[in-house]
Amino acid sequence: MAAIKYQVIKKDARTKARLGILETPHGVIETPVFMPVGTQATVKAMTPDELKEMGATIILGNTYHLYLRPGHKIIEKAGGLHKFMNWDRAILTDSGGFQVFSLSSLRKITEDGVEFRSHIDGSKHFFTPEKVIEIQNSLGSDIIMSFDECAPYPADYDYVKRSMELTIKWAKRGKKAHKNTDRQALFGIVQGGTYKDLRRECAERLVDMDFPGYAIGGLSVGEPKDLMYEIIDFTTDYLPHDKPRYLMGVGTPEDLIEGVIRGVDMFDCVLPTRIARNGTVFTSRGKLIVRDAPYAEDFSPLDEECDCYTCKNYSRAYLRHLFKAKEILAARLATYHNLYFLIKLMEKIREAIRQDRLLEFKEEFLKKYYGNREE
Amino acid sequence: MAAIKYQVIKKDARTKARLGILETPHGVIETPVFMPVGTQATVKAMTPDELKEMGATIILGNTYHLYLRPGHKIIEKAGGLHKFMNWDRAILTDSGGFQVFSLSSLRKITEDGVEFRSHIDGSKHFFTPEKVIEIQNSLGSDIIMSFDECAPYPADYDYVKRSMELTIKWAKRGKKAHKNTDRQALFGIVQGGTYKDLRRECAERLVDMDFPGYAIGGLSVGEPKDLMYEIIDFTTDYLPHDKPRYLMGVGTPEDLIEGVIRGVDMFDCVLPTRIARNGTVFTSRGKLIVRDAPYAEDFSPLDEECDCYTCKNYSRAYLRHLFKAKEILAARLATYHNLYFLIKLMEKIREAIRQDRLLEFKEEFLKKYYGNREE
Ligand SMILES: [Zn+2]
Ligand SMILES: [Zn+2]
Repeated sequence: MAAIKYQVIKKDARTKARLGILETPHGVIETPVFMPVGTQATVKAMTPDELKEMGATIILGNTYHLYLRPGHKIIEKAGGLHKFMNWDRAILTDSGGFQVFSLSSLRKITEDGVEFRSHIDGSKHFFTPEKVIEIQNSLGSDIIMSFDECAPYPADYDYVKRSMELTIKWAKRGKKAHKNTDRQALFGIVQGGTYKDLRRECAERLVDMDFPGYAIGGLSVGEPKDLMYEIIDFTTDYLPHDKPRYLMGVGTPEDLIEGVIRGVDMFDCVLPTRIARNGTVFTSRGKLIVRDAPYAEDFSPLDEECDCYTCKNYSRAYLRHLFKAKEILAARLATYHNLYFLIKLMEKIREAIRQDRLLEFKEEFLKKYYGNREE
Repeated sequence: MAAIKYQVIKKDARTKARLGILETPHGVIETPVFMPVGTQATVKAMTPDELKEMGATIILGNTYHLYLRPGHKIIEKAGGLHKFMNWDRAILTDSGGFQVFSLSSLRKITEDGVEFRSHIDGSKHFFTPEKVIEIQNSLGSDIIMSFDECAPYPADYDYVKRSMELTIKWAKRGKKAHKNTDRQALFGIVQGGTYKDLRRECAERLVDMDFPGYAIGGLSVGEPKDLMYEIIDFTTDYLPHDKPRYLMGVGTPEDLIEGVIRGVDMFDCVLPTRIARNGTVFTSRGKLIVRDAPYAEDFSPLDEECDCYTCKNYSRAYLRHLFKAKEILAARLATYHNLYFLIKLMEKIREAIRQDRLLEFKEEFLKKYYGNREE
């Protein structure tokens, strides 16, 4: 039996947006969905109960980080990642590819895999496509990713082509190495940088391998927004309609809406949690740097339209004080609000698709969100 | 009408321990009680909801810190400290005396008050007994403290005597300056170091002024434990039976039990929250440094006998991982457990007094708590 089951239940009349149901071994997920990032077996500053309370149905874990610390074998002994971190809903783990190329001191890429040094203690490690699957099999996440090389931007055509070829070979090897096909769904990752023919070729060859879902990687790495949207739009045309599509590492409110319109079902991004810890929050009227002086005596909530725990109980003045005083509660309350904001945004997007008014929703949302710019 | 009402409902048959009910404008407190410390308008890493969930009925706020940041006027504008920090149960604020003498660059003590520099930005400030009351009147805490000088240990007799005289004069001035006697109860603070005659004189002269409650200050500042217990025992003999007694800044599990036996009703201490953030937790079998290597693969809870949120859902191995990875959730889960541990300890102490078996409880508790030492 397959680990996951995906079904499109409604298509938007005027865009490529889809409303879907994704069944996993740890619960049912309505798509499009935003997945909070739990890098080190915790969504920073949150408990699993809080994530449930705000409506999260799936979170992301980072294979690279968990492999290095605490180690996948310890998590396996604990009974898997779900049990280790007390999260009984779905988990998706990434391939480690992005982190190996961005965080570690890179040693050498070969056909066989990548030798790298840990960003924690400098120790030497080797990731092969098989190893990355083995780690994720130990973790027991519901959706796992095949090992990929994420090319930088800009990168020349030949480099990206070779990198894409490698990613396809690794996908093949990973698929073969994957043990728990009945309880963990392995996604292929479409690479190809900003070259359309490479994106198309990569998508088509991965689709030939018949994965239960597809990720679009290598975007949001420095390319212009318009180009990113164009590549997303182009790539989803070569992905099957009956499989979920996951756009890796993309997650501003605007990007979520634009991604959905271009046929994406799943998103993750560290942005909401990271900016929260620095004192910046999303609001229906744009971003707000609550740690700034103007909010010292502002006793209104972060966002008048938000009904999250933070907005119901605390003022901007209080949040500002907590940030100035470097209190842990600052990160907690701001993180809660930001994740809640994106999860509710996805709920609104799903409702808009249901009502065939996604484009109208987009216009209304962005007008208010960027309203300050026009004033 | 008085702000608080205190009633002894049972005295222990063999010790000076008392079971009491303390009614405040923000709820009823069963004593003896442990008060979590919320220095900067937050009990570090906790939400008010979590504090309620673990059974906290009163918390402490620091006048010195709140005066400097965000400033008592901002808190007053917010509607008082309760509203500012979303805590609708009782709050006790300290006098600021201890912090002025321990944290700030001290400039000058005069009859009139203390000139000091902020530990945050070096700015110059002047605390008088009247100012300290004015600040606490702005904060709106249920129980407030009169300004005192906390003598160091060791200190010679003449120094401590002069310091004690000053504390009494300041208590008189503070009492006169206090505006909200109907909704904020002002406690006098007994000083006198480790000199019994000075403790007695200070207690008697404060009792003559008829405060609604009395604090014992200037202990746990470096003197031997036995001497501390002796001074507590001596001092409570000179305090009225029908008024609550608060031992400032004392809070190891052992100290709580020993304090109760000597007639103390209220305690506060930063210890449980501070050590939690560093990876040390209380357990029924003594302290445990969960961030240490031996717990890397220990999948049991922090304390087998504890039924707190942390112990019900997470393992030592997970906590250890969170501490190594410097995750905020580490501080959250450990703080929750440590506060829960002390609050439940006080519940057990109250139950033991109710059953006239406090000394037996003490023996059982300490035998298990220090069991490792004997093995
Ligand atoms: Zn909110
Ligand atoms: Zn516990």
